[in-house]
Amino acid sequence: MKLIIGNKNYSSWSLRGWLAAKQSGLHFEEIIVPMFGEEWQQKKLQEEGGMMPSSGKVPILWDGETVVWDSLAIMEYLADKVGRDRFWPKDDTARGMARSMVAEMHSSYQSLRSECPMNIRQRFDGAKISEDTRQDVVRILGLWAEARARFGGGGPFLFGTFGAADIYYAPIVTRFLTYGFGVPGFAEAYMQAMWEHEWMQAWVAAAEDEEWVLEQYEGVASA
Amino acid sequence: MKLIIGNKNYSSWSLRGWLAAKQSGLHFEEIIVPMFGEEWQQKKLQEEGGMMPSSGKVPILWDGETVVWDSLAIMEYLADKVGRDRFWPKDDTARGMARSMVAEMHSSYQSLRSECPMNIRQRFDGAKISEDTRQDVVRILGLWAEARARFGGGGPFLFGTFGAADIYYAPIVTRFLTYGFGVPGFAEAYMQAMWEHEWMQAWVAAAEDEEWVLEQYEGVASA
Repeated sequence: MKLIIGNKNYSSWSLRGWLAAKQSGLHFEEIIVPMFGEEWQQKKLQEEGGMMPSSGKVPILWDGETVVWDSLAIMEYLADKVGRDRFWPKDDTARGMARSMVAEMHSSYQSLRSECPMNIRQRFDGAKISEDTRQDVVRILGLWAEARARFGGGGPFLFGTFGAADIYYAPIVTRFLTYGFGVPGFAEAYMQAMWEHEWMQAWVAAAEDEEWVLEQYEGVASA
Repeated sequence: MKLIIGNKNYSSWSLRGWLAAKQSGLHFEEIIVPMFGEEWQQKKLQEEGGMMPSSGKVPILWDGETVVWDSLAIMEYLADKVGRDRFWPKDDTARGMARSMVAEMHSSYQSLRSECPMNIRQRFDGAKISEDTRQDVVRILGLWAEARARFGGGGPFLFGTFGAADIYYAPIVTRFLTYGFGVPGFAEAYMQAMWEHEWMQAWVAAAEDEEWVLEQYEGVASA
């Protein structure tokens, strides 16, 4: 399998798709397509395998003849392959909430997403946010609190063990850190567990190295 | 199970959740919460079962202790109960595309959705649309064409038999009719099959009766 992703520092949907691929336990090859403009991206993709993405957006999973675009579709497609329990809580009520939280993240929080884009390397202290963004943050903290309190007994993650909801809220964790939002203790503990997860550490390290990598890519592109 | 939905004429996400509930084959009770303002909605919900929706949005599925909000989460939760094959293509490649199309519908087409809201009872001939909306329409027609051509051999729906992708694009079918968009023949045939589906016919009939029903509700609300 090949997973096409964007810049690790900026592409929050790529982080979700990549964590889902890691969580599947399956082998996959990463293809990074930095955000350098569409024409260059298409050239790069053609070199890599001759297939064009359907939506022009990352992440995209290629599995032989199968092309899956959108991080949520990728996660579900992988869950179909390796079994639902690797991603979703076994308990029906917990799973109903986890599925709802993931879907809400997938379609909502426009204000937070546009006002506070993911930027892993950066720290902005005391960032001013709009009332809409503040409401997004409050809503997310409320969902985290409920998941942790009701279903988080088996571990430090939203539903105990690491799963789909954590994968989906991972870029929110990095945003809360980047923009220096003060959060209650339970959220701080959750964010620390997420930040220390080995896959997050690997992604963050790659995001930090990316400036150098992008220079190399740029050299290739103009060669 | 109880399914909370909004006005049948206007609430496109409710139509998706309701079609998913029908597709599950499980028995469910419909609770219509017309869009009359939040305070009245909350009162109505408390009367019905004492639980508040988490997001303030419809549709919401209550299954005993389990609350599932968001139409996509509801569909997946029901697929967990009755088996994936009732909603998704069995073939991996077809399912990868169906999952991607559903996810794209879930998070995209903002321009089409805001410029051409669902309004089943109405017909607007020659509606003027923006370039962004035109691009949404072109993209959707392209996806329909690909699904029908590659995977639609077993029936008149996007992937042959009626399933998740049809459930998700059903409100698009009603919009194309409401706003009088000219579409190619293959899309016309697909839209006709959708429109004639017995569940769509039942929903449309209810949407047409709704003005009368809403008057009754209003009477109750002000009593």
